[in-house]
Amino acid sequence: MNRNKGVTGPKGFRAAGVAAGIKESGALDLTLVVNDGPNDAAAGVFTTNVVKAAPVLWSQQVIASRRLGAVVLNSGGANACTGPEGFQDTHATAEKVAEVLNIGAIDVAVCSTGLIGERLPMDAVRFGVEKAAKELADTVDAGLNAATGVMTTDSRPKQSWDSHPDGWSVGGFVKGAGMLAPNMATMLSVITTDAVIDGAALDAALRQATSRTFDRLDVDGGTSTNDTVLVLASGASGVTPSAEDFVALLTKVAGDLVKQLQGDAEGVTKEVSIVVRGAATEAEAVHVGRTVAEDNLVKTALFGSDPNWGRIAMALGRADAVIDPDKLGIAINGITLCANGTRAQDRSLADLTGRDIEVVIDLNVGASEATVLTTDLSHAYVEENSAYSS
Amino acid sequence: MNRNKGVTGPKGFRAAGVAAGIKESGALDLTLVVNDGPNDAAAGVFTTNVVKAAPVLWSQQVIASRRLGAVVLNSGGANACTGPEGFQDTHATAEKVAEVLNIGAIDVAVCSTGLIGERLPMDAVRFGVEKAAKELADTVDAGLNAATGVMTTDSRPKQSWDSHPDGWSVGGFVKGAGMLAPNMATMLSVITTDAVIDGAALDAALRQATSRTFDRLDVDGGTSTNDTVLVLASGASGVTPSAEDFVALLTKVAGDLVKQLQGDAEGVTKEVSIVVRGAATEAEAVHVGRTVAEDNLVKTALFGSDPNWGRIAMALGRADAVIDPDKLGIAINGITLCANGTRAQDRSLADLTGRDIEVVIDLNVGASEATVLTTDLSHAYVEENSAYSS
Repeated sequence: MNRNKGVTGPKGFRAAGVAAGIKESGALDLTLVVNDGPNDAAAGVFTTNVVKAAPVLWSQQVIASRRLGAVVLNSGGANACTGPEGFQDTHATAEKVAEVLNIGAIDVAVCSTGLIGERLPMDAVRFGVEKAAKELADTVDAGLNAATGVMTTDSRPKQSWDSHPDGWSVGGFVKGAGMLAPNMATMLSVITTDAVIDGAALDAALRQATSRTFDRLDVDGGTSTNDTVLVLASGASGVTPSAEDFVALLTKVAGDLVKQLQGDAEGVTKEVSIVVRGAATEAEAVHVGRTVAEDNLVKTALFGSDPNWGRIAMALGRADAVIDPDKLGIAINGITLCANGTRAQDRSLADLTGRDIEVVIDLNVGASEATVLTTDLSHAYVEENSAYSS
Repeated sequence: MNRNKGVTGPKGFRAAGVAAGIKESGALDLTLVVNDGPNDAAAGVFTTNVVKAAPVLWSQQVIASRRLGAVVLNSGGANACTGPEGFQDTHATAEKVAEVLNIGAIDVAVCSTGLIGERLPMDAVRFGVEKAAKELADTVDAGLNAATGVMTTDSRPKQSWDSHPDGWSVGGFVKGAGMLAPNMATMLSVITTDAVIDGAALDAALRQATSRTFDRLDVDGGTSTNDTVLVLASGASGVTPSAEDFVALLTKVAGDLVKQLQGDAEGVTKEVSIVVRGAATEAEAVHVGRTVAEDNLVKTALFGSDPNWGRIAMALGRADAVIDPDKLGIAINGITLCANGTRAQDRSLADLTGRDIEVVIDLNVGASEATVLTTDLSHAYVEENSAYSS
């Protein structure tokens, strides 16, 4: 696992991140990732929010072919709730990328992140695309610039790369997620691989990997209008991995990107893992974990380093799942505070002063398990989401 | 509408609030409300949380007869997640009340609020019941003491009373609700009336009234282990109101109690009304309103007096309801910021600096409407729920 390499880690990819002038700050705000092949298999997963940004509507269409030649991403504007004109802006962005790369617009996915409800400055976007095309490179620096160009309130670029002994690798970058970006609450990720894999297999692998990684990070229940995860396969390694090996490495890299999202969440002071065991089904384990992860009384207690298991019991009692209050067990950082639904060890034994907290909830009604990652609810979260909102 | 009178406003009721020694602070912590009849009709609604406190389990049983002679309530301990022993404590409390009032334990409802997972100090409870029985009175002061005895982090007792021209009235008290009480996140309310009404009609009226009042206040999505609303009818006025008149006055008093809960919510700096119009069904209107009410990014924006309609669009897009993004309208304090799913008037025109904020969401897909009351998410909320949690 190497966090200094990303989308340019696998062979067959070039990338760039430039300052297009979309952000008034002059920071990098446009990223281009190009797949030089020989293959161009691709797959994507998108937000479930019914209010979808124009770039999501566009990218969902172009990914239907399970082929992509390039992905263009911008920060500084989400292009969401912008109507038909906003969709035309996205189309024009893809056309511009197609022009400079001499491919079809249908081969170009578009991602945007930033304020909802504002049109993008298209002159700046077109300028940025031309500038990025000139700076495309397969270097580590180019990958870092690509990861930096999508940042909004992220405190640092987030990349991960890992290789398989057989000679192929997976790399990618990510930005945002839940609390991470208040009115830019978007999570965008582009993952690349030089493995030989067709679009159908890539799509199946991406859904398996994201269901265990991106789908299990819940910082505030938010689902943005722009959330997107794309994976591109160049086949440049010439190696065709087994489905198991590919899913395993893709999941490992995705999981490391998600861990970085959790660690950089806005106002985070605690990195919390909620482990739900003994659930009737894995889906219910995830649902119970998310219900607890989204409870403000639990999140504020964790911010206060308070092992308040009563709030956890109250929170999970709201979940739509098979729960027997008399069988409930709750442990925090290894101390069993609740057993058979009642008080067990004294709460004073649980030390929550560190940054990492593990909550283990045992429903004792089944054999399924899942872990949901979340954060605490801190003063910094309120500050960053109120005082500094647009 | 009179907020200086409560459960002793209607004829046929005596009440008391005493310091039993359950709270170490020595504050009032035990309340007794007695129905002297001639009738003893009663009804109740309880938390939907599957993790139910012992007093809820007890009261759900005794209310099945739709008759109650008295209600005993304590603050300083929720008696939740306390197992069979906790249930025995509740039973013993009812037995003690039955003994001092010379009625059956089956005629006594029990409510508790406080820390989850701790047993109640039963000697103090028994002492408090005897003390309260001696202080029972039908006076305004007795009603105020009763409303005070159930307070936890409430900043003030909350009462409401109103009368009908025909000579009957409805009064009650309430404590808590959502953010109002962190690890004591319980809402308890006892409402009395001297109208002549049977248990079945009273039950139907209570469900109609709470569905439009208590069920539409959502400060943080919390549903406590102890939430309870009880209504007792003495028939002492000798007047039998029409079903319409009774539901109307009961709803009016319940609504005033709920408005006081919103205004006293922990850390509240904004009292927010979320009006959802044009929904396919009233249930969907309520669901959309609650989804927005529970969104931390919306709540922090409101705390910051920021008319960030994009966050509202994002939040409601998660709701499980019929929504057409292209028909969406959003207005804040009278300024239409979003029409047909895109930007309308400039956000700078919306002034959110006051304490009261009205958000009007028009889904434009149907004819149903509902209003959900909520609050903002402030530094004070985080402080009260982290630094001061047990």
